[in-house]
Amino acid sequence: MWGGRFSEATDSFVAAFTASVGFDQRFARHDIQGSIAHATMLKECGILEASEVATIIEGLQQVLREIEAGEFNWSIALEDVHMNVESRLTDIVGAVGKKLHTGRSRNDQVATDIRLWLREETDNIIALLVRLQSGLLDLAEQHTDTIMPGFTHLQTAQPVSFGHHVMAWFEMLYRDTERLVDARRRINQMPLGSAALAGTTFPIDRTITAKLLGFEGICQNSLDAVSDRDFAIEFTSAASILMMHMSRMSEEIILWMSAQFNFVQIPDRFCTSLLYWLIYHAAKEKP
Amino acid sequence: MWGGRFSEATDSFVAAFTASVGFDQRFARHDIQGSIAHATMLKECGILEASEVATIIEGLQQVLREIEAGEFNWSIALEDVHMNVESRLTDIVGAVGKKLHTGRSRNDQVATDIRLWLREETDNIIALLVRLQSGLLDLAEQHTDTIMPGFTHLQTAQPVSFGHHVMAWFEMLYRDTERLVDARRRINQMPLGSAALAGTTFPIDRTITAKLLGFEGICQNSLDAVSDRDFAIEFTSAASILMMHMSRMSEEIILWMSAQFNFVQIPDRFCTSLLYWLIYHAAKEKP
Amino acid sequence: MWGGRFSEATDSFVAAFTASVGFDQRFARHDIQGSIAHATMLKECGILEASEVATIIEGLQQVLREIEAGEFNWSIALEDVHMNVESRLTDIVGAVGKKLHTGRSRNDQVATDIRLWLREETDNIIALLVRLQSGLLDLAEQHTDTIMPGFTHLQTAQPVSFGHHVMAWFEMLYRDTERLVDARRRINQMPLGSAALAGTTFPIDRTITAKLLGFEGICQNSLDAVSDRDFAIEFTSAASILMMHMSRMSEEIILWMSAQFNFVQIPDRFCTSLLYWLIYHAAKEKP
Amino acid sequence: MWGGRFSEATDSFVAAFTASVGFDQRFARHDIQGSIAHATMLKECGILEASEVATIIEGLQQVLREIEAGEFNWSIALEDVHMNVESRLTDIVGAVGKKLHTGRSRNDQVATDIRLWLREETDNIIALLVRLQSGLLDLAEQHTDTIMPGFTHLQTAQPVSFGHHVMAWFEMLYRDTERLVDARRRINQMPLGSAALAGTTFPIDRTITAKLLGFEGICQNSLDAVSDRDFAIEFTSAASILMMHMSRMSEEIILWMSAQFNFVQIPDRFCTSLLYWLIYHAAKEKP
Repeated sequence: MWGGRFSEATDSFVAAFTASVGFDQRFARHDIQGSIAHATMLKECGILEASEVATIIEGLQQVLREIEAGEFNWSIALEDVHMNVESRLTDIVGAVGKKLHTGRSRNDQVATDIRLWLREETDNIIALLVRLQSGLLDLAEQHTDTIMPGFTHLQTAQPVSFGHHVMAWFEMLYRDTERLVDARRRINQMPLGSAALAGTTFPIDRTITAKLLGFEGICQNSLDAVSDRDFAIEFTSAASILMMHMSRMSEEIILWMSAQFNFVQIPDRFCTSLLYWLIYHAAKEKP
Repeated sequence: MWGGRFSEATDSFVAAFTASVGFDQRFARHDIQGSIAHATMLKECGILEASEVATIIEGLQQVLREIEAGEFNWSIALEDVHMNVESRLTDIVGAVGKKLHTGRSRNDQVATDIRLWLREETDNIIALLVRLQSGLLDLAEQHTDTIMPGFTHLQTAQPVSFGHHVMAWFEMLYRDTERLVDARRRINQMPLGSAALAGTTFPIDRTITAKLLGFEGICQNSLDAVSDRDFAIEFTSAASILMMHMSRMSEEIILWMSAQFNFVQIPDRFCTSLLYWLIYHAAKEKP
Repeated sequence: MWGGRFSEATDSFVAAFTASVGFDQRFARHDIQGSIAHATMLKECGILEASEVATIIEGLQQVLREIEAGEFNWSIALEDVHMNVESRLTDIVGAVGKKLHTGRSRNDQVATDIRLWLREETDNIIALLVRLQSGLLDLAEQHTDTIMPGFTHLQTAQPVSFGHHVMAWFEMLYRDTERLVDARRRINQMPLGSAALAGTTFPIDRTITAKLLGFEGICQNSLDAVSDRDFAIEFTSAASILMMHMSRMSEEIILWMSAQFNFVQIPDRFCTSLLYWLIYHAAKEKP
Repeated sequence: MWGGRFSEATDSFVAAFTASVGFDQRFARHDIQGSIAHATMLKECGILEASEVATIIEGLQQVLREIEAGEFNWSIALEDVHMNVESRLTDIVGAVGKKLHTGRSRNDQVATDIRLWLREETDNIIALLVRLQSGLLDLAEQHTDTIMPGFTHLQTAQPVSFGHHVMAWFEMLYRDTERLVDARRRINQMPLGSAALAGTTFPIDRTITAKLLGFEGICQNSLDAVSDRDFAIEFTSAASILMMHMSRMSEEIILWMSAQFNFVQIPDRFCTSLLYWLIYHAAKEKP
């Protein structure tokens, strides 16, 4: 991998220490999805032959099947998910497999993989949040007349309804959803085509790849595209605020379940997981 | 302040320890702006007499003038900015000043003040970012043909132009601006009218106050409205990412100024503040 | 596990969600080490028969062999490492295995496991730091006369020797070692004997267990003992400062390797892992 | 200040932006304390005349009196506390004042100031912690027979005594004190004598200055000495853990004061500051 001006092989401890394949395996499906779109674009732009691309895509689909079946042989010597997939592809389809890397680099490839993966995770979380909100709405409707104390600093202050309290939770989750939707717009920009840092001289068309992969925009600057990980920090921040809300909700339920408060009782089968009870109780059907 | 069921005065050390007036003074202008809008709404809804409200507003404007002239006597015994302003108002206009607090609590008042203040700060930062971006754009245009090395891990990789590098900075700031614009929507919701936590029985109309104060929405749940400070955490997160970008830009300039790199030279008059030089050089006119 | 007042089984999703065995497996060796010491103490105090304890210890040793051979069948239904080990023990030795839990709870058991595990990790890190320091000392000795620029803000300031610069790194690591040694004293206190939170009525002798496990002290308060995780936060803080130093050292080498600085060259075989090169070059023999 | 190779004055905005005197004023007393020790050492080593040093020390004492009386004229143009003090010293005693800077730089001076200041703050905090612990000990003694529920996840578990619960707090604070004592050893090392980064050619004796200032050791490497701020990070970490303990104690009292728990009642005069009540109640005499 590090040929070129290098005149000796990587030390074996270094190879093990720097290998990322132990954790970037999880990007395998998105890596292959990105490669299929990239190959398709290379064909559309006349850079690769249609027959070559067909062979590459078939090979990639076989690699994916092997990974999903748990039959893939991950190699630390091949460092990361990209090299593992590409190496196996070449085993299957022969030298044509190497043409897949035309007009791209591992730098823009990994940035693309992370974005595709995080976009999917974000969508999953948003769907769960919407479902929980929907359940909270039902719970609130059932309890518009259930009176409970409103507290300031845990001192009984003014009466409110349990439905009103539940709707305070609803509002927190509404903002969390909004924040994730906003973050998703910045996640969903495509770095592919930036290559190592300075783009490529091949006549690629990034809009084709972006459309195939569902990206709503293209990173405008190649230097920025390969180094930007802001979107991941922003996601982490939104996720932290969300978990703070989950913690507040859980703590309130724990308090209400104490013998001293005795406001709510939850079934034994949920008794080591209040958060789950909340989700279960609030959601319309069982996950 | 803490009358009601209390039968003894607050301990003097406690009063000093819990007083916030030392730092919430900075909200004074927004506190008064909020009070003027609140009083106007109370009049529109027929809760206070027009003449009472006129007196209150004149009084509040006098308080503001005293504060801006540095002639206001801040009192720790009065705990916070709200009580200081209200107490002085009552000194000036008499007992009618106390009617200002009709239908609100310090809980929704402070939440409103923080939002008005942070909205203004956010707008200021966005304006500075846009100006810096505009300057970077000019700088990039001047240097579309200035060739420099592109680096990977500080090893010379491929040639790029200095203009291209500057545009990588532009992109970072573009995202920062977007994040602040997104955060601003969540900052710009009005908690006023939630009172202590359970709203008020006075027939107030929150849409009037919101319109007067330029809020684009009203917090929907009173329990949530007085406890929500998510918007401040979100602002802080966006600001941290922005400062990381500023740090990266500054470090690159420091590197380029070293005798070993010797890519740029900056005038002596900026030599202890690279960031400022950047802003100055990039911006069209001096701040 | 959650019998007693519970009248229904834990929901299966809840069981999977709350199971910790996926990550607390790593404590298996220390969990068994703690159990052997606990059983030995129960015998010494006359709480269990010598023959019972002999059977338990033999059983625990077999469990450990199975785990180390990769033949252990970890069960999510059994929730955590403690229940997995105890359940397998009872399979092997029969009902006497259940007597092992006399006078302890999972609350003090997990606190003990974490401390034993972290003590070992801390010792490993300290040994690596001492070895790296020893290598840096040699490197510094070889370069007492190798002149290089000292920098302020990357501007060449005063000449220093490379040996002097290397000794600045030595000092950073010296403080890191000190901090870990200090943290280790607080890690190395034994919570065992605190049971769930209020101790036990069995006539146990905690000093015996502490001596067998190499703890230098006993947690004095049972409520605190089962809830204290300060030591882990303190370790994390010391580790963060250490990694900041590693990052500074690595960044300096990267800078010196640039074509512009060209101060050092490192062999190709280390070229994707500067930190390792540093350790390798500095240490007397290869890891 | 920035003469030498500089050919133009610092831009006025830059001067204001980079000035630290707004916040490093708080080091004034320690800055002068350090300067007096430094001047004394210069005399002992025969670098300055005894009469010169006497004049400098008298001048420094006058500067301190002016600062403590609030009569000192802080100047942003003079950038930081060091330059403000030195400039005023020269106003008072004439050109001999400039000799104070012999054999030192602002780089080792500010590092020394921060350490002297933080050492004093640390000592103050340790004294407060010891006093609080002493009060908790008394409170625990009074309540060895006051039975209360012990909780797990706020479910009533086993009975404990209130004295036992209070001693759990005592243990937390004991560890906090230990951590601060450990951090203090690393704070209490003297960087003075490292000058800008490479030491000085003047025949100074750092042990004299260290002894005068109560430092228990001398930073061994000049490059490290002027850049090390680990001690401040370590203090911050210890302080964070301490505040987490304070927060836990406060939250427990808030819970116990709720109408539902109703375990404790606190006098009205402390009712906005539970932490203070705790300190007050626990400590033997009022602060």
